[in-house]
Amino acid sequence: MEKLKKYVSVEDEDHFYHQGAVELLIFNFLLILTILTIWLFKNHRFRFLHETGGAMLYGLVMGLIIRYVTKSPDVESGTVYECEKLKSGPTTLLINITNQVYEYQYKREISQHNVNGHQGNTMLQKQMTFDPSIFFNILLPPIIFHAGYSLKKRHFFRNLGSILTYAFLGTAISCIVIGLIMYGFVKAMVHIGQLKQWEFHFTDCLFFGSLMSATDPVTVLAIFHELNVDTDLYTLLFGESVLNDAVAIVLTHSISIYSPKENPNAFDAAAFFQSVGNFLGIFAGSFAMGSSYAVVTALLTKFTKLCEFPMLETGLFFLLSWSAFLSAEAAGLTGIVAVLFCGVTQAHYTYNNLSADSKMRTKQLFEFMNFLAENVIFCYMGLALFTFQNHIFNPLFIFGALVAVFVARASNIYPLSFLLNLGRKQKIPRTFQHMMMFSGLRGAVAFALAIRDTDSQPKQMMFTTALLMVFFTVWVFGGGTTPMLTWLQIRVGVDPDEDLKTRAASQSAPNMDKNTTKAESAWLFRIWYGFDHNNIYVPDQEDFLEDRLFFF
Amino acid sequence: MEKLKKYVSVEDEDHFYHQGAVELLIFNFLLILTILTIWLFKNHRFRFLHETGGAMLYGLVMGLIIRYVTKSPDVESGTVYECEKLKSGPTTLLINITNQVYEYQYKREISQHNVNGHQGNTMLQKQMTFDPSIFFNILLPPIIFHAGYSLKKRHFFRNLGSILTYAFLGTAISCIVIGLIMYGFVKAMVHIGQLKQWEFHFTDCLFFGSLMSATDPVTVLAIFHELNVDTDLYTLLFGESVLNDAVAIVLTHSISIYSPKENPNAFDAAAFFQSVGNFLGIFAGSFAMGSSYAVVTALLTKFTKLCEFPMLETGLFFLLSWSAFLSAEAAGLTGIVAVLFCGVTQAHYTYNNLSADSKMRTKQLFEFMNFLAENVIFCYMGLALFTFQNHIFNPLFIFGALVAVFVARASNIYPLSFLLNLGRKQKIPRTFQHMMMFSGLRGAVAFALAIRDTDSQPKQMMFTTALLMVFFTVWVFGGGTTPMLTWLQIRVGVDPDEDLKTRAASQSAPNMDKNTTKAESAWLFRIWYGFDHNNIYVPDQEDFLEDRLFFF
Repeated sequence: MEKLKKYVSVEDEDHFYHQGAVELLIFNFLLILTILTIWLFKNHRFRFLHETGGAMLYGLVMGLIIRYVTKSPDVESGTVYECEKLKSGPTTLLINITNQVYEYQYKREISQHNVNGHQGNTMLQKQMTFDPSIFFNILLPPIIFHAGYSLKKRHFFRNLGSILTYAFLGTAISCIVIGLIMYGFVKAMVHIGQLKQWEFHFTDCLFFGSLMSATDPVTVLAIFHELNVDTDLYTLLFGESVLNDAVAIVLTHSISIYSPKENPNAFDAAAFFQSVGNFLGIFAGSFAMGSSYAVVTALLTKFTKLCEFPMLETGLFFLLSWSAFLSAEAAGLTGIVAVLFCGVTQAHYTYNNLSADSKMRTKQLFEFMNFLAENVIFCYMGLALFTFQNHIFNPLFIFGALVAVFVARASNIYPLSFLLNLGRKQKIPRTFQHMMMFSGLRGAVAFALAIRDTDSQPKQMMFTTALLMVFFTVWVFGGGTTPMLTWLQIRVGVDPDEDLKTRAASQSAPNMDKNTTKAESAWLFRIWYGFDHNNIYVPDQEDFLEDRLFFF
Repeated sequence: MEKLKKYVSVEDEDHFYHQGAVELLIFNFLLILTILTIWLFKNHRFRFLHETGGAMLYGLVMGLIIRYVTKSPDVESGTVYECEKLKSGPTTLLINITNQVYEYQYKREISQHNVNGHQGNTMLQKQMTFDPSIFFNILLPPIIFHAGYSLKKRHFFRNLGSILTYAFLGTAISCIVIGLIMYGFVKAMVHIGQLKQWEFHFTDCLFFGSLMSATDPVTVLAIFHELNVDTDLYTLLFGESVLNDAVAIVLTHSISIYSPKENPNAFDAAAFFQSVGNFLGIFAGSFAMGSSYAVVTALLTKFTKLCEFPMLETGLFFLLSWSAFLSAEAAGLTGIVAVLFCGVTQAHYTYNNLSADSKMRTKQLFEFMNFLAENVIFCYMGLALFTFQNHIFNPLFIFGALVAVFVARASNIYPLSFLLNLGRKQKIPRTFQHMMMFSGLRGAVAFALAIRDTDSQPKQMMFTTALLMVFFTVWVFGGGTTPMLTWLQIRVGVDPDEDLKTRAASQSAPNMDKNTTKAESAWLFRIWYGFDHNNIYVPDQEDFLEDRLFFF
């Protein structure tokens, strides 16, 4: 008897596992379709649908099929059991069922209305939903690391001041503006009876603001890259989107750890400074964690001469970069931010110590991981629209979000550009500002932040809205990039290296003395350079000085 | 009140997640240490400890630390709850605890003695044990695919007949011999009262025989590669170990699906033919699945001219190869076998259609995945010796396994070599036979097969024994490879391509007519060649004919 049951349970497990294989196969199939479609589009120079848009479209179609074509789930799985002895949900549950002990692992809390209302749909929900933590721990890190690692150092440092302004100040402005506008809409919805007062607090609105502030112009940047759009514009947009993800993630985290403690409606001065303090602490800690792992990698690759064995070198590089992420998470900091700055520092220091073979290996490895992860996320977003069970579509809230996102983007780009132009020698032209305004797409990070918590009804409404905003911005603005570039008459076909050289030459010719003085006065960079030179790597001197010269 | 509880549960989840990060960090740390050690050894040309041996050693030390240094787990987690309403363990359990519904996922069945005997150790067990399916679904596929993909075609086909004989016939012999010897030992143990009669059936012994028949001479092959040992010996050993994994996996599967159905002690003729039938069906199905995915990849890369976009090409290659694995698993076949033949076929067909960039990308990608996965597995094996909770060390059984493994290896290599030498023009010398006998190391596949099922006491005893056999063979035989090569006076420093050419020249010079006749009579290969040429790819004619000529 006992024997028999064991085989039954093994078969159950097999069934469970086969289902997993089928799910992964569906994803593989969608990704293969996406790749073939991208090829078709690229081959015909058709730029209205980017690969991410295509992935989303296929995901959507597959979601529709899964939802309406597959047979309805079995009834049994919706049953709720009572356990009087337990006081709270432990992470591991040992249950004695007819004299056999089974181990169960905690998965999540289910809100009551979910169980009673949609009984029987649990199966579908289980069928096609990842654990949200997969986004944060597996799919996002390679994307963010790749962004940091592939950063074009020279152009980045040349515009660093502006990029930091947009990323920090701009994201904060965007978060607050979205929060305020959404709070207005929520108040109005309460007034007309669409929402209950207690459901939506100001901190929830700020939370929504912070998650919707993570821009992801992957579609736009891909087209910029293909058309060789003006390097300054490319760098500003790329740099902003990279750092802005980090800021938005830490901001969301600071707001969410603040909210439960006190009265959530009174967001007073003390609370504000506490959030700012949290933000700065977590950001600085993650930054330090990420860059110190990269410095360790640089030192190891410098002193061990590991470059004779490219495989070991690549392995070490990969593991130490991943460790930066894990250490930050284990220490309660933000892994994504750590991995971003780890990528930037690896590119600055370690890259120069690597063998030619490892340079290519690491670049290609992270490029490939980025490609796969990005397409999986966009594919999954398409799938989620029909397979996620707890969508709450609220037209007014969605309309409010649309308005808020655009007002927030405008009050980020235009005022900050004006302020920056006061100080910049090379002004940011109006057309660039319009293009940056237009490129405020939402993507992987906003989605990942929204799916992290879908327990309560406000959070579910936010998730649905965020998902729709991603669809809308990727398809409409992503598709409109090429026409917009033509309309704004932004120059394309620029060779980035040539551009830099000619500009540097034309700048240094008339005011040679001024430049020399500036270089000599930049003592901080001289110390930095001296430190790098003596301790971490031997940079190409010309290269380095050029970086530093163009700091602002 | 409800609010408060929710935040508590979020914190629980955070804690749970942080622990996951710490676990992964420990693994990363071990792998980084391993890489640095390997570098040190390679730098000093110290060949007694291979990287896999080093990884195992570090895992062992870390396992000791985790076991004896970390603080004892909390008491709560060992409590077993009763649920009278349930009749069997469902995959998803919804439990109502103080008016809040929690979802729990089925993890595994725990044998009774485990819960009562080692109460409180559950925490440790959870702390450092992967889900065994991770080995089969994540770590093993890249290793096996890489083995197929990196196969040196020419040398492989030249020795195909011998390799197939060792892999199929040899593994079957090994399985049966180990099974019989172990059955003898088990009978003896029952006689002296160390075991109860009913615990260990003949099918269990055969199961142990099949899993211990998977050889993994990764250590030996790495040294062969480094020293450029005779190509024929390298190819024989490499080819045997690659195919033999596939045979052992399918064999284990056929035996395990046979055993529950009938009286497990009577392994009669009908049962034998049923097992052989299962084996052939699963093997042929998996082979067909794997190679057809590779042919699809070849056709797609031929007709789409995807080679203009190396990233898309690499992505497609990766996804289709992975799909071969998943489809086989979803269809109830053996994914590992499918992925092996997929790799072989990809190397034969698709590789020729890829762009130069993709050729390198795919090679390096799979090489890297293989490197990481292999070291993770060996590291984990070291860790498992101290952290796995249900070890059953039975000295007599372990001694029996040691004897059985060596007798089985001898009755595989020597008789089959004798038979093969009757037909081979290029005989397998005595020294090669001794070296092959010596290279019967056990590794990742044997371990993965053993850890798959550790529910019952016999299975736990088998797992412990298999683990110790891996340790013993990898350290003792792996470390003894270089002295053994010197002792047997096997030639080293051979350039494989040169070797092939000179031998082909010396062979074709005296008996030109014979060779031409042989080539003309090989009509099957001419058809194959014509088909490949017209439909799938344009092979280098000379290359192709050479492969076929050396079929036996």
